[in-house]
Amino acid sequence: MPGLLDSITKENDIKNIEPEQYKQLADEIRHFLVSRVSRTGGHLASNLGVVELTMALHIYMTFPEDKLIWDVGHQAYTHKLLTGRKEEFKTLRQYGGMSGFPKRRESECDAFDTGHSSTSISAALGMAAARDLEGNNNKIIAVIGDGALSGGMAYEALNNAARLRSNLIIILNDNNMSISENVGGMANYLGKIRTNSRYQGLKDDVETALRKVPGLGNKIVDKIRRSKDSIKRLVIPGMLFEDMGLTYIGPIDGHNMDQLNTALKSAGKMKEAVIIHVITKKGKGYKRAEKHPSDFHGVDPFFANSGAPRVEKKANGYTDVFGKKLVELAKEDDKIVAITAAMPSGTGLTEFRGKYPNRFFDVGIAEEHGVTFAAGLASEGCKPVVAVYSTFLQRAYDQILHDVCINRLPVVFAVDRAGLVGSDGETHQGVFDLSYLGSIPNLVVMAPKNSQELEAMLAYALSLEEPAAIRYPRGEAYEGLEEFNTPVVKGKSEILYKESRVALLAVGSMVKTGIETRELLKEKGYPVTLVNVRFVRPFDEEMLINICSDHDIIVTMEENVSNGGFGQMVSSCLVKFGIKNVRMIPVAVPDAFIEHGNVDQLKEITGLTPEQIAERIITVR
Amino acid sequence: MPGLLDSITKENDIKNIEPEQYKQLADEIRHFLVSRVSRTGGHLASNLGVVELTMALHIYMTFPEDKLIWDVGHQAYTHKLLTGRKEEFKTLRQYGGMSGFPKRRESECDAFDTGHSSTSISAALGMAAARDLEGNNNKIIAVIGDGALSGGMAYEALNNAARLRSNLIIILNDNNMSISENVGGMANYLGKIRTNSRYQGLKDDVETALRKVPGLGNKIVDKIRRSKDSIKRLVIPGMLFEDMGLTYIGPIDGHNMDQLNTALKSAGKMKEAVIIHVITKKGKGYKRAEKHPSDFHGVDPFFANSGAPRVEKKANGYTDVFGKKLVELAKEDDKIVAITAAMPSGTGLTEFRGKYPNRFFDVGIAEEHGVTFAAGLASEGCKPVVAVYSTFLQRAYDQILHDVCINRLPVVFAVDRAGLVGSDGETHQGVFDLSYLGSIPNLVVMAPKNSQELEAMLAYALSLEEPAAIRYPRGEAYEGLEEFNTPVVKGKSEILYKESRVALLAVGSMVKTGIETRELLKEKGYPVTLVNVRFVRPFDEEMLINICSDHDIIVTMEENVSNGGFGQMVSSCLVKFGIKNVRMIPVAVPDAFIEHGNVDQLKEITGLTPEQIAERIITVR
Repeated sequence: MPGLLDSITKENDIKNIEPEQYKQLADEIRHFLVSRVSRTGGHLASNLGVVELTMALHIYMTFPEDKLIWDVGHQAYTHKLLTGRKEEFKTLRQYGGMSGFPKRRESECDAFDTGHSSTSISAALGMAAARDLEGNNNKIIAVIGDGALSGGMAYEALNNAARLRSNLIIILNDNNMSISENVGGMANYLGKIRTNSRYQGLKDDVETALRKVPGLGNKIVDKIRRSKDSIKRLVIPGMLFEDMGLTYIGPIDGHNMDQLNTALKSAGKMKEAVIIHVITKKGKGYKRAEKHPSDFHGVDPFFANSGAPRVEKKANGYTDVFGKKLVELAKEDDKIVAITAAMPSGTGLTEFRGKYPNRFFDVGIAEEHGVTFAAGLASEGCKPVVAVYSTFLQRAYDQILHDVCINRLPVVFAVDRAGLVGSDGETHQGVFDLSYLGSIPNLVVMAPKNSQELEAMLAYALSLEEPAAIRYPRGEAYEGLEEFNTPVVKGKSEILYKESRVALLAVGSMVKTGIETRELLKEKGYPVTLVNVRFVRPFDEEMLINICSDHDIIVTMEENVSNGGFGQMVSSCLVKFGIKNVRMIPVAVPDAFIEHGNVDQLKEITGLTPEQIAERIITVR
Repeated sequence: MPGLLDSITKENDIKNIEPEQYKQLADEIRHFLVSRVSRTGGHLASNLGVVELTMALHIYMTFPEDKLIWDVGHQAYTHKLLTGRKEEFKTLRQYGGMSGFPKRRESECDAFDTGHSSTSISAALGMAAARDLEGNNNKIIAVIGDGALSGGMAYEALNNAARLRSNLIIILNDNNMSISENVGGMANYLGKIRTNSRYQGLKDDVETALRKVPGLGNKIVDKIRRSKDSIKRLVIPGMLFEDMGLTYIGPIDGHNMDQLNTALKSAGKMKEAVIIHVITKKGKGYKRAEKHPSDFHGVDPFFANSGAPRVEKKANGYTDVFGKKLVELAKEDDKIVAITAAMPSGTGLTEFRGKYPNRFFDVGIAEEHGVTFAAGLASEGCKPVVAVYSTFLQRAYDQILHDVCINRLPVVFAVDRAGLVGSDGETHQGVFDLSYLGSIPNLVVMAPKNSQELEAMLAYALSLEEPAAIRYPRGEAYEGLEEFNTPVVKGKSEILYKESRVALLAVGSMVKTGIETRELLKEKGYPVTLVNVRFVRPFDEEMLINICSDHDIIVTMEENVSNGGFGQMVSSCLVKFGIKNVRMIPVAVPDAFIEHGNVDQLKEITGLTPEQIAERIITVR
């Protein structure tokens, strides 16, 4: 017998489902998600948490006229299911297949591409302003998690939403989690609303007491109920939002369709921005994910029965190498402190947090604050290490420049996931950091060739009295070339193999590719020089001049966009020194946003494989 | 008779002043500030507003052990006076002289360099964490304006400050203003506290009523007083901050030394982050500035008696040209909307705001939100123009990349103050935008040679279906070369003078410099080609190839750092096309932070004058 889910083949089909069938539909969706994601990998816990919420939204809204903006966007799987993309789940996050995030190019029902946190209210508010100017009255709804609410941009948007004189619904999807547990004043506040009993108790006390005041009691209580102001605090939760000029509804049970439908209907009638505070459970309906939502945030394929991964985890990743080395260094130097923006596990700081809880700071999803906070720590003699993904560090570009580098403070940036990251796609590729960091004065920028060099660079960066960034890629750490371990010296590259004619100048992860390229060329009878660049800032100009004196092809290799990257910098050196005897081949990520797919495929597509590079060299040679 | 101010020659000297002399000292400081700033120019209204606050802080704190962080930092003049820098005011904002902002290199009493908004709490929190790790107990205080509180980073910091278990004082300097008037939910909330009467009234009502409850009344009131929770809302204002886990004291009169001293003392005793809400008046004590604080925010030299400028305002600035043209275009196209982050006047949007109030959006100091808000508007068919200074747009790097350019939405960025800006120094130079914008896929980046071309580019950008940025400098718009007005075509440069041998490829403001360089060289008998680059992205490679076919020196000219800038991009083209017959001279801002001074001096220092460029060409030629 075909299930209810099979009867939903396009947007708005859910409106044909009877209310008494909602529970069954939710079950089918959950079953589908667990079954699919366990095979393809993807985001699971967050999606299981919003099944009823998404259903309620799709019952309330009409697509594609109405606009639904998913903050971060990894929780939009049910939305994709309910807009006719069930079959596409087979190709989830695969190259050419369906993205794991909302994509305007994928469906008219995806109103806005997201990926980074805390952007949804801003985008929704822009859409609402456009709607009002046009005189339309379609619905606009943003769904934002409580974790994303620790990002300052969300607050900037709430501050502006308070001025809206037309309807906008902001669903606060409160599951008490970012990827890890939430931190900070706002999280505590939401926690209080959630647990609620104390509020409730006081409220009843006071109301009862007031009513007893002879002659005056009921009048005061009515005054309270009518009041738009402080006194209302007694009667309803969420006053922090009301204080900011927003209307608050909640907290309501995010797995109860009746409550959700009622809340949406009443919120929709208001001519203002309304927050509906919805309590959901991450991983809902799949016991393992309910218990360990962090483990089932973004997952590789696993066996649904046991929760065990289908493919054994590979060797040490760079993240692990970084985390272990930092703990080791921190043991010797108590000035070392570590900062993460809500990703202690993803950035490898779990052990550090366990061993040095006082020296560990999870600032929430708040990269801007995190970086300037680190600057403050450094200005008073600490040695802060900010561990962050390349793509998220983009958010703190100004703080790196303005707070760390103008002040020339010794903050170390451990830039993880630098390069192509794979299945999360455009919004998560770490292919801009060499460009955006490369233009900032006073900043040292390094990339290690292998795990041992990451360790050495971390120790070196922590010995500096100036800001430094180390970028390293996602995934398995390269363990080769361990015989090359000359000390890290500022602005000095490392020549691994010296031949003549062709020289590969490889940055970080591309050294391994360089080795492979070199092997391929050697097989064909062309030995090539291989240089481990180490420092993109300051760059080893002396090495370049020397290399150019006995080579005639220079190949720059980087996992970064060409614009503003390492290759352009080398070209400008060639020009600066009037070096004309060499031909340069720049290998870099092209000037485009690179979609999802596995990293090997993406390297192929962007021309970063050893075979492709060897081919280019042979053609020119 | 020497005044009290003369007796203060170094930090902590103020502690020797008797309380009954505070008023006189404040008067002397105000008199000094008006007298000095009217001669040198500088920030006035904000400094006059914090005279008593700064005095109270200097009485309470001990420098340099205690750390005082000024948000934005333009209001630190009294702080500079009280730390022995009175004489240096003669050189305020002049090259080699005293900065108008806190500078660690200038004084040990300047704890942190600031310039951009909303960073102070993050830095202070970092310092507090470092202090606690060291087991010290020095005082740490951040002073942040209510305007800066609309920046999301400040909220991220408050969210984290709630977790602190040691003392940190955050002074909320509430003057109800950014540079212009404040907007948004938080501003309204603070307004309510300021006016206060309704809160006060309700509070008394309820307390009186409760006490009357027979047998139970006093008990409930005590419970309220002891309560840390919602019920406390009845008794004190500032509950929004208390809800976030911060202790709130206020509002207090920021011109009353007694109130300030008392508040600081009680706040200092608490083992947590405390907000002292201080109400001040911008421009206090100088009637003209009190009345028109915006006009006396950042001022050129003026006559203190009349308020009139000492030097007549020069001809049309680029800001005006932009503002007028936008109004003209908006008249024809009602899809055009304008967005500013708290700088309607500075970015030239005053007329637009007046004519099209519904299509004008001042989002407060919130560049991140502003950019994604614009993306939302564009996704629904509006044509948003984000008018913003180059240095502040740095804050929205990720939003440009992630929300505008991945979504490929037609948002126009009008990037004002691009290039060297002069007397505000390091933190305000707009010399990074070609680099940070240049590496973002899908973005068109232009720079006009003169006012007429700015108009044409604005019209052109608004006709595009993709994101575009136009960068133009501070100050007087160049009106020359009006005979050159070929239509703006994507990726096409404009050849102004075609000679042979030497070609100047000039970006935006550097075209005028190019003309002057050309004249100098012509006088010496060297005619040179001059190309108006127009598009940095996409770059006119065809033109470059043609020029290289009959020239042997290419001079790239840009008011941007060399790293990641236009020159590097041209070098990479030369390398890409294997062009070896030409020598390239890259003229750009060096890889360093450039301090304050007038723009002509700064151009001299950075090697951007026609004379210096001509000299370099002659040397090579």
